[in-house]
Amino acid sequence: MYAVILAGGSGTRFWPLSRETTPKQLLKVVGDETMIQQTLVRLGDVMPVKNIYIITGQKYVFDIKNQTDQVGGAGLKIIAEPSARNTAPAIGLAALHIRKRSPEAVMAVLPSDHVVTRPEAFRKVLMQAATVAKKGYLTTIGVVPSRPETGYGYIQKGASLSKTDGIEGFKVQRFVEKPDAATARKYLKSGDYLWNSGIFVWRVKDILAEMQKQIPDLYQGLMKIGRALGTKKEEEVMAAVFKELPSVSIDYGIMEKASKAAVISADIGWCDMGSWIALAEVSPKDRMGNVITGNVIDIASKDSIIYAGNRLIATIGLQGTVVVDTPDATLICGKEHTQDVRKVVDELKKKGAEELLEHVTVVRPWGSYTVLEVGPRYKIKRIVVNPGAKLSHQLHHHRSEHWVVVSGTARVTVGEKTYNVHPNESTYVPLSTGHRLENPGKVPLHLIEVQNGDYTAEDDIIRLEDDYGR
Amino acid sequence: MYAVILAGGSGTRFWPLSRETTPKQLLKVVGDETMIQQTLVRLGDVMPVKNIYIITGQKYVFDIKNQTDQVGGAGLKIIAEPSARNTAPAIGLAALHIRKRSPEAVMAVLPSDHVVTRPEAFRKVLMQAATVAKKGYLTTIGVVPSRPETGYGYIQKGASLSKTDGIEGFKVQRFVEKPDAATARKYLKSGDYLWNSGIFVWRVKDILAEMQKQIPDLYQGLMKIGRALGTKKEEEVMAAVFKELPSVSIDYGIMEKASKAAVISADIGWCDMGSWIALAEVSPKDRMGNVITGNVIDIASKDSIIYAGNRLIATIGLQGTVVVDTPDATLICGKEHTQDVRKVVDELKKKGAEELLEHVTVVRPWGSYTVLEVGPRYKIKRIVVNPGAKLSHQLHHHRSEHWVVVSGTARVTVGEKTYNVHPNESTYVPLSTGHRLENPGKVPLHLIEVQNGDYTAEDDIIRLEDDYGR
Repeated sequence: MYAVILAGGSGTRFWPLSRETTPKQLLKVVGDETMIQQTLVRLGDVMPVKNIYIITGQKYVFDIKNQTDQVGGAGLKIIAEPSARNTAPAIGLAALHIRKRSPEAVMAVLPSDHVVTRPEAFRKVLMQAATVAKKGYLTTIGVVPSRPETGYGYIQKGASLSKTDGIEGFKVQRFVEKPDAATARKYLKSGDYLWNSGIFVWRVKDILAEMQKQIPDLYQGLMKIGRALGTKKEEEVMAAVFKELPSVSIDYGIMEKASKAAVISADIGWCDMGSWIALAEVSPKDRMGNVITGNVIDIASKDSIIYAGNRLIATIGLQGTVVVDTPDATLICGKEHTQDVRKVVDELKKKGAEELLEHVTVVRPWGSYTVLEVGPRYKIKRIVVNPGAKLSHQLHHHRSEHWVVVSGTARVTVGEKTYNVHPNESTYVPLSTGHRLENPGKVPLHLIEVQNGDYTAEDDIIRLEDDYGR
Repeated sequence: MYAVILAGGSGTRFWPLSRETTPKQLLKVVGDETMIQQTLVRLGDVMPVKNIYIITGQKYVFDIKNQTDQVGGAGLKIIAEPSARNTAPAIGLAALHIRKRSPEAVMAVLPSDHVVTRPEAFRKVLMQAATVAKKGYLTTIGVVPSRPETGYGYIQKGASLSKTDGIEGFKVQRFVEKPDAATARKYLKSGDYLWNSGIFVWRVKDILAEMQKQIPDLYQGLMKIGRALGTKKEEEVMAAVFKELPSVSIDYGIMEKASKAAVISADIGWCDMGSWIALAEVSPKDRMGNVITGNVIDIASKDSIIYAGNRLIATIGLQGTVVVDTPDATLICGKEHTQDVRKVVDELKKKGAEELLEHVTVVRPWGSYTVLEVGPRYKIKRIVVNPGAKLSHQLHHHRSEHWVVVSGTARVTVGEKTYNVHPNESTYVPLSTGHRLENPGKVPLHLIEVQNGDYTAEDDIIRLEDDYGR
């Protein structure tokens, strides 16, 4: 069995916690692991790590590798999409990669923004789904509804197909769009409907065959890519063909018209983290129905979500309000308006407020930096360099840099000289001078950088040499 | 004519904009001047500056002098109360000072947290009140009500006393406490009632005589202080006697029982900035009834007050909500709960969160500093030194300091050496080494200080010499 994790989302609905450079799947939304880490860990040993693929945008590859390596994911494969083309092309692309290794393989498709509170039950459901898939069914995980939710699509169950270990599979009678409240109540009461989780299990050959039938343009394009896979032309063909593939979702493009569709009834504590509201579904609430995280003083609020970090958030008498605080931006939003968060992101793009589309802390291959303040003629950063890591050999034409070591040891090259700088010591890199910063030690190096000059943007950098091929 | 401005308030109701070290009167709440500056400027040339007294707490004296100097207040007198004892003792103390210069003087008493949008009319009212006061009346400014406000006390007008320039004075029929909504509507409709502004005008001898009659303990105490004024014992007697004076308000202790009280009917655009709600009274509103200031993106909010600075505040669909953002703390509060802001301040005190009781920017005699970040073993400050100013000659036992000059020129003394540091240059002060920082230039000196050490709190300072006598 193989798994394909879809991790291409840009996650505007969780702004300001998610940013263009740090979408939801890279964030710790619930618990101590990021959503992509949780998605991986949830698979347990259902399949070996080398059978797991993550498909994502080019700009997220580094962070995803870094995060998945931390939870035993070393050896999984990351496929970078040249552009975002919705779920059907992404799944098709992953299917090609798997088919090359194993034409009869069963693959599970897993979004990376779900919470599952019963992972053991989830894995059993996945195994059961694989059994049904081996009979040629395009199989969906259908979640037993716990409330008349209007935010999810539903699946009506047909004839029973199998039952093992209390887990039952059915033919799909029909897929239905998000219902209104009255219909949702009817669905819940009937017991005939399940929530469409967007988790799928099928044989590679079956999904490709269905794509050929339902979306021939997509299939033709995929075949071109398939023929180039592993050849010298792979990159060139991918770049040329992928962006022309039809942008279609797997639900709308394939599942709703599939002749042989099945659904596994699952009771796995599932939640799609589609907006801030979903956070309240999966988090413990206080006596007043609030979900409160971080440095918060609250007086008499009700049914609210207050998500803070280190800055103090004081709330008094809120009702049904979502508050999300980050170092550089705060969102305050009526619960019924959480879908409008994307409008704020649109507004920021329109205004060219680029700095608010990424976090103040930026992760790099060698460690991370946090912008503490930007002012006229200066910028201040806190820099962390991992043990053994090395920044590129670089120079800047418009700024000098002053480094004060707070902890750890820095090995610094400025011009022709190389020397060590210890805690309590500082050094200085003049304008237009080649320099390199390295952590030769065994503990992280923390330093404060004060940049000084006419222009302190990141693009004033000339890389003379780089360990990370940038 | 003399004026006494009451500026002792600790202003917890405007937290987080106001802090223990920066109460409301020191803040720009509306417009480009602070409330104490506006109070002073509003007096115009009703009296010479040397006839103006400001009575405040010891810790606010420096800031008040600094702020009032900026708006032509050089030469006014600041009286520091040894402790806060409510309005009657403060007014009594000021009366002693004025009596010493002019026993027959008329004095106006002015709170420092009012907004008056028609200052010209206000000055005319003040002159008219002085005329009435000269006949021996304890005279209050009564504001013509514009709405059935339940947050103010009222004064019922009695017989007409005088009318000049369309401004009429009346005997006071009675003072009434804050009414309920129905009573307030009745008062408004009757035309017989005025809002009690807390602005008073009277002869020094009349208010002291009334204190003798109504609060003999207070009077006896004041007389002790009065006899010591201008003698070597002044400070000692003040310290011993003032803290024992009965803590009584002038309204409750004197005015409500005064036999000869008058009120001047005033239409002066007056507002008591008693809470965040008052801000909406005096600020222009948008189409949806919002008052929005600073870096805000709002979508569809109504009747809300959103007060931001440089950080981005994004609000969606709020109704009747107050949002106040500062660099280190954000308040979000239902409009009907603004009186509970003080509970947040109480909570912070209980938690010992001292850093949130002052602003990240601290004004000093020589300029100011802003704490940008505090972390393990380091603290980063942006420091501004005024032209010609000099910090104390000092040393620290637990931290070294690195200074990077951003603009202006620094003259630095470290140990025995003195040298200049220019923009783009940095210097270093080792542990336990005497050092001094000075701005020898004509423009402000901006520098970034990185402190490094086991302990970076402000109290690790040994002052060897100080221009400001600290």
